[in-house]
Amino acid sequence: KMLGRVLCTVLFIEVFQSLAEASQGHISVVLLGATGDLAKKYLWQGLFQLYMDQVSSGHSFTFHGAALTALEPGQRLMFDVLKDLSCPPDEAPNRCAVLKDQFLKLSQYHQLKTAENYTALNREIETLLHQEGLEEAGRIFYFSVPPFAYTEIARHINSSCRPPAGAWLRVVLEKPFGHDLQSAQQLAAELTGFFREEEMYRVDHYLGKQAVAHILPFRDQNRQFLDPIWNRHHVERVEIVLKETVDAKGRTSFYEQYGVIRDVLQNHLTEALMFLIMELPANVSRAEEVLQHKLQSFQSLWGLEKNSAVLGQYQAYASQVREELQEAQDYVSTTPTFAGVLIRSDSLRWEGVPFLLTSGKALDERVGYARVLFKNRAYCTQSETLRDAGHSQCKAKQIIFYFGHGALDTPAVLVSRNLFRPVMPKDTWKEARAQSDVHIFGQPLSDYYVYSPVKEREAYSVLISNIYHGRKDFFITTENLLASWAFWTPLLDSISHQPLRLYPGGVENQHLLDFEMVSGGLAFTVAKPVELLNPSRQMPSDYRAIQSKYRQSPLVSAWSEDLIAQLASDIEKTASRSVARAGQFHLALSGGSSPVILFQRLARHHYAFPWKHTHIWLVDERCVPLTDTESNFFSLHSHLLQSVRVPYFNIHPMPVHLNQRLCVEEDRGPELYAKDITALVANASFDLVLLGVGTDGHTASLFPHSENGLEGAPTVVLTESPVKPHQRMSLSLPLINKARQVFVLVLGKGKHDIATLLSRAGHEPRKWPISGVSPSSGQLVWYMDYEALLG
Amino acid sequence: KMLGRVLCTVLFIEVFQSLAEASQGHISVVLLGATGDLAKKYLWQGLFQLYMDQVSSGHSFTFHGAALTALEPGQRLMFDVLKDLSCPPDEAPNRCAVLKDQFLKLSQYHQLKTAENYTALNREIETLLHQEGLEEAGRIFYFSVPPFAYTEIARHINSSCRPPAGAWLRVVLEKPFGHDLQSAQQLAAELTGFFREEEMYRVDHYLGKQAVAHILPFRDQNRQFLDPIWNRHHVERVEIVLKETVDAKGRTSFYEQYGVIRDVLQNHLTEALMFLIMELPANVSRAEEVLQHKLQSFQSLWGLEKNSAVLGQYQAYASQVREELQEAQDYVSTTPTFAGVLIRSDSLRWEGVPFLLTSGKALDERVGYARVLFKNRAYCTQSETLRDAGHSQCKAKQIIFYFGHGALDTPAVLVSRNLFRPVMPKDTWKEARAQSDVHIFGQPLSDYYVYSPVKEREAYSVLISNIYHGRKDFFITTENLLASWAFWTPLLDSISHQPLRLYPGGVENQHLLDFEMVSGGLAFTVAKPVELLNPSRQMPSDYRAIQSKYRQSPLVSAWSEDLIAQLASDIEKTASRSVARAGQFHLALSGGSSPVILFQRLARHHYAFPWKHTHIWLVDERCVPLTDTESNFFSLHSHLLQSVRVPYFNIHPMPVHLNQRLCVEEDRGPELYAKDITALVANASFDLVLLGVGTDGHTASLFPHSENGLEGAPTVVLTESPVKPHQRMSLSLPLINKARQVFVLVLGKGKHDIATLLSRAGHEPRKWPISGVSPSSGQLVWYMDYEALLG
Repeated sequence: KMLGRVLCTVLFIEVFQSLAEASQGHISVVLLGATGDLAKKYLWQGLFQLYMDQVSSGHSFTFHGAALTALEPGQRLMFDVLKDLSCPPDEAPNRCAVLKDQFLKLSQYHQLKTAENYTALNREIETLLHQEGLEEAGRIFYFSVPPFAYTEIARHINSSCRPPAGAWLRVVLEKPFGHDLQSAQQLAAELTGFFREEEMYRVDHYLGKQAVAHILPFRDQNRQFLDPIWNRHHVERVEIVLKETVDAKGRTSFYEQYGVIRDVLQNHLTEALMFLIMELPANVSRAEEVLQHKLQSFQSLWGLEKNSAVLGQYQAYASQVREELQEAQDYVSTTPTFAGVLIRSDSLRWEGVPFLLTSGKALDERVGYARVLFKNRAYCTQSETLRDAGHSQCKAKQIIFYFGHGALDTPAVLVSRNLFRPVMPKDTWKEARAQSDVHIFGQPLSDYYVYSPVKEREAYSVLISNIYHGRKDFFITTENLLASWAFWTPLLDSISHQPLRLYPGGVENQHLLDFEMVSGGLAFTVAKPVELLNPSRQMPSDYRAIQSKYRQSPLVSAWSEDLIAQLASDIEKTASRSVARAGQFHLALSGGSSPVILFQRLARHHYAFPWKHTHIWLVDERCVPLTDTESNFFSLHSHLLQSVRVPYFNIHPMPVHLNQRLCVEEDRGPELYAKDITALVANASFDLVLLGVGTDGHTASLFPHSENGLEGAPTVVLTESPVKPHQRMSLSLPLINKARQVFVLVLGKGKHDIATLLSRAGHEPRKWPISGVSPSSGQLVWYMDYEALLG
Repeated sequence: KMLGRVLCTVLFIEVFQSLAEASQGHISVVLLGATGDLAKKYLWQGLFQLYMDQVSSGHSFTFHGAALTALEPGQRLMFDVLKDLSCPPDEAPNRCAVLKDQFLKLSQYHQLKTAENYTALNREIETLLHQEGLEEAGRIFYFSVPPFAYTEIARHINSSCRPPAGAWLRVVLEKPFGHDLQSAQQLAAELTGFFREEEMYRVDHYLGKQAVAHILPFRDQNRQFLDPIWNRHHVERVEIVLKETVDAKGRTSFYEQYGVIRDVLQNHLTEALMFLIMELPANVSRAEEVLQHKLQSFQSLWGLEKNSAVLGQYQAYASQVREELQEAQDYVSTTPTFAGVLIRSDSLRWEGVPFLLTSGKALDERVGYARVLFKNRAYCTQSETLRDAGHSQCKAKQIIFYFGHGALDTPAVLVSRNLFRPVMPKDTWKEARAQSDVHIFGQPLSDYYVYSPVKEREAYSVLISNIYHGRKDFFITTENLLASWAFWTPLLDSISHQPLRLYPGGVENQHLLDFEMVSGGLAFTVAKPVELLNPSRQMPSDYRAIQSKYRQSPLVSAWSEDLIAQLASDIEKTASRSVARAGQFHLALSGGSSPVILFQRLARHHYAFPWKHTHIWLVDERCVPLTDTESNFFSLHSHLLQSVRVPYFNIHPMPVHLNQRLCVEEDRGPELYAKDITALVANASFDLVLLGVGTDGHTASLFPHSENGLEGAPTVVLTESPVKPHQRMSLSLPLINKARQVFVLVLGKGKHDIATLLSRAGHEPRKWPISGVSPSSGQLVWYMDYEALLG
């Protein structure tokens, strides 16, 4: 054992000396997990490429493989990998052979297990450098280890292996970076205890794929063509796709915990999406600017809902899991291996454009691409070209960032010739010659300008080079990571008891996984699948709202998303009935946070709602200007009114801001509002009043022991809230009780206590104003989610 | 000569007698223009078909050919036509031969030239019927004559040839029915002097084409499938197309006066369009209901503008015209032989869906169809089907009413198999077997359910049968005709000095006539045509607005449509500058009719307008409720606000209706409005005020000799109008003059006198309030169309 180590150290120093004249300083690269799969397959090759590229840069290098394995077997394993390193085709074989020899000599194995091991490593580096009189430029620690080991290793590096002042530290982290928002936040918080943000390089190897990495530069260099068309007026849809033919066999212990959304969509496809939809920064190579624009784009995305995704699982997966994880025969896996997800943005640029993200294992082909399909606004007068090409429209206009594999089997950028000739950097991208028989998305390759990289590079080589150059824009910052998890986690939560479609795998899938956009979400096209995989967990049904009684009135209960869907649909039905009966629908809405989801659902899913004949009234209002973000009307406007077409005349905000002042009694706002109601609403009887409940039992802005509004005339009153802003305007209980229908929406665990209390309480409006809601000739319905109802 | 006539009459009576037992009464059919092209080609064959179909109906028939030609040559010409009548393939040859013989004997030629001729014809019919003791059921007069002859013939028929009481009269009219709205109205008025509406059968032979005639029944019988998808949410576009390979050679004397829009689009394609877009009547065979729904659909169409159409002329046309019409070598024809027109509806059902009507001569193929293409919302996960079919999307979903010719060479109804299996009436439509090699709009025929008629019928046979049956829903009523002309005439007017693209004809047209939708209109796809045909008329340029001075201020002048376009674009520029400078744009708009076109243009063509940051104010208002159609705000709302997204808070109607009463002084509306202005508009200086001018020189609601608002403080005032409604609210002149920019829009001949007067007037606001508009530190620009400026 000792001999090996000495021999190795000797060799190490010898080559090292030959490079001692380097003046830019020394870089130590430590690869943790040096004998693992990823290291074998990509990382050592990437480090060797870095060495070849940078041997003349003035920097000197040493490479330190590390693992838990003891020295001797570890050494052997590592050098088995290193001797298989290949020379790239664009490198002169002689030079490469010499450099490979040097690289082997500069590489050393270390067992890194205990705190002492780390201290020893640090000492070795320092000693070597000191002996050779070299300045230290920096240290790279590449974590190619399972995430549970991160914190421990990070602690050791931070305490024992930091380079001296003036030299940099770069730690490179491999996914998974958590499992949902909470675990990602926790992991991030732990790492932040050891490293500064600028020291961390989180790898998403998609950012090293040449076609992905070129999306932003392409948008930048082709601004003149893209500026007028890179928007909702011109883009029909965007598809971001990673299809695999392999399945998860042999990896189920990892895969069963993650599934396709965490494995591919949350990271790779989301990053590609961001490059496509973000507003273009003035300088696309400034990492800070790119990050800011990316975060803004995350803000613009609509929240994902259960029906935003279609999910599948290949048939053999369950048995693979049972076998590899030694689970019982009745074990049911609910892990999706296929997902299609519909993403929408409400930015001015992209509103209404569908972004479809798709990935799966055991599909018919291996291919990855991001494809921007433009609207087909042309009419081809001559039949010839139309018919020959087999198109139902004129030739499509599209831009495709082809990540690799598939029909082209190379990264590429394709632009329809009927769109524009793109500007491409000549040193890195070359125009490819058309293979006449290849068709890409319905068009022969000759219909496109096709560019491929001058030098095809593995993603990891690109990334390792970028780590060396400190190009942080190729890596995932903490903020970026958390924004992505914040976006995906609600979907992951809501689909955890979603049925999966089983598919046979490969070409046999046929149309089973085709999906389409229906009423704001996705659904499989083939309506009746052969078999559906349902989760075995016993739960209140997710697919039908429970109907029962609460305080002697009908109760609808479900998980909150389903409940909101049911409520929205019931409101639409009430609206249609009112319009059919009376030609109009008078709807009074409450403020607060619960209705926001309802408003969004009404705006996004209810195209047939008779808005034109709907009058919108407020149940209550805070005495702030209508444009104040605290205003109930402002929230209603932002989440509903600005997206639907209610005529201006039918919108009735409460007059809390008359004569440029707030709720002053002399301005007689409540009387004005009551007059308007009397003038427009037959018998002052609203068709539907939507209420909420506070934890103190208040409803509308009628608080316990209020002096106004709990009894007396059906009118509008000024009230006092115990919380700011104190002044409120509200419909009175007697006015609410004149309504034809009253729906009360109660959401969330926080309402469980009051819900329980109220279930036993009688009619005590002074104590609990909500208990006074009892329409004299109308109907009351409670909409309460499981969390509020069951706690 | 005499012999021929006697012989003919003898034969006539002989056959006639053999049918005397008929009990349903006798029908006399008079075909005027019996030896013309249309009669030769279709009408006699149609009448023969009618006879074959109805010989056993209980009606007896006589057929009277008529023309200006004298008896003997006319007889000879007519019987030459009759003896060539063919037996349809689905008729037993023996029976057909017998019936043809009878038909010839029942047919007689008449010279109809003078009043006496008509009286004689009437006497002959009466005599024959009287001799045979037959009841008269009715008379059909079929006008297959040039339109200039209509009135004369109509007068004669009305005065001499009406059947006795109890029998009906049906006059059948062939297009052209006028040349524009005015001429059509005139012709209609003349005919109405002679015939009742129910007596007139205006032929559009497209309504007799089997696939066109089946559109409404198809929609009716397939309601269950179509109801959810026959709307803007599902339909991508609709194409209605009639392509011809022939050119106008030999017909230029007609064609040169009409052109492709009058010849094909205004009638045939418009009728097909109406069947597709009208709301479906409860009973599709009730002519009255169909007509009412059709008229409503016309109301929903956006007015056509110059850029709604692309126009072309095949290269040989000009020389054909010069030759056939003996025009000079420098004669330039501006008649289009090709047109693509973009039509839009603002109905709730179709808003945003493009309807493309296309027709032309000298194209590459002869085909007619109406095609409804549905939105492609699917993602096909497996590449196989996608790639093989050569599609960039999943298989298209479409419904095609195939009028005839083209690849199928038969009328047909096609429905994509991935859409639904249609319900078709089995007695008249049969499922066609797929010819495997035929592709229709990018899909093999096997991808469709294909139905063709059990019996293929010429349109004229269908129509003649419908005249016999009194099915008025197959004909164009006067209201329908005028609605169509009202729709098309503005386009015809505005393109009369529009350039035409020359095209070589046939397959050589290549991409020259392809067009696409750009910024709300159409444009040829190939940007630089080989040659443009420009009209030679000398006119103020249509393509650039004239810039000069009026009353010492800048004047922009052009034809009204171009002027409005320029004004809209200038307003957008002002808006963008204001938002860039101050974050908001305060725009004060006037009422009246002129701005309506401007409002529509802003709503439809200015997607990038910063509405979100725009505040809308009123320059003046009538003291009526805001929901009154007389309200300026109501008009602004209907034509602009309901189509764009101005935040509710930024919309500032004048408070003319406070406390449920109109402009009562105690309610202090003007003060309230002035307060709002002061609170929101910096320095009460609007970014832009748009004004108009009345023929009396008033502007805003500031009338000559008004007591308020012409001088004094910059405020809001109540004024009195000389016309109803008398009470008004208005910004005062001093307030208007604080604006940064004031645009004055003056349109139409009616304003020429005041425009001339004002050009010489000084600053005399009491006499002419508009003359007091003079922004103290802002800019005034006049937008005046040629009609107002030049008279």
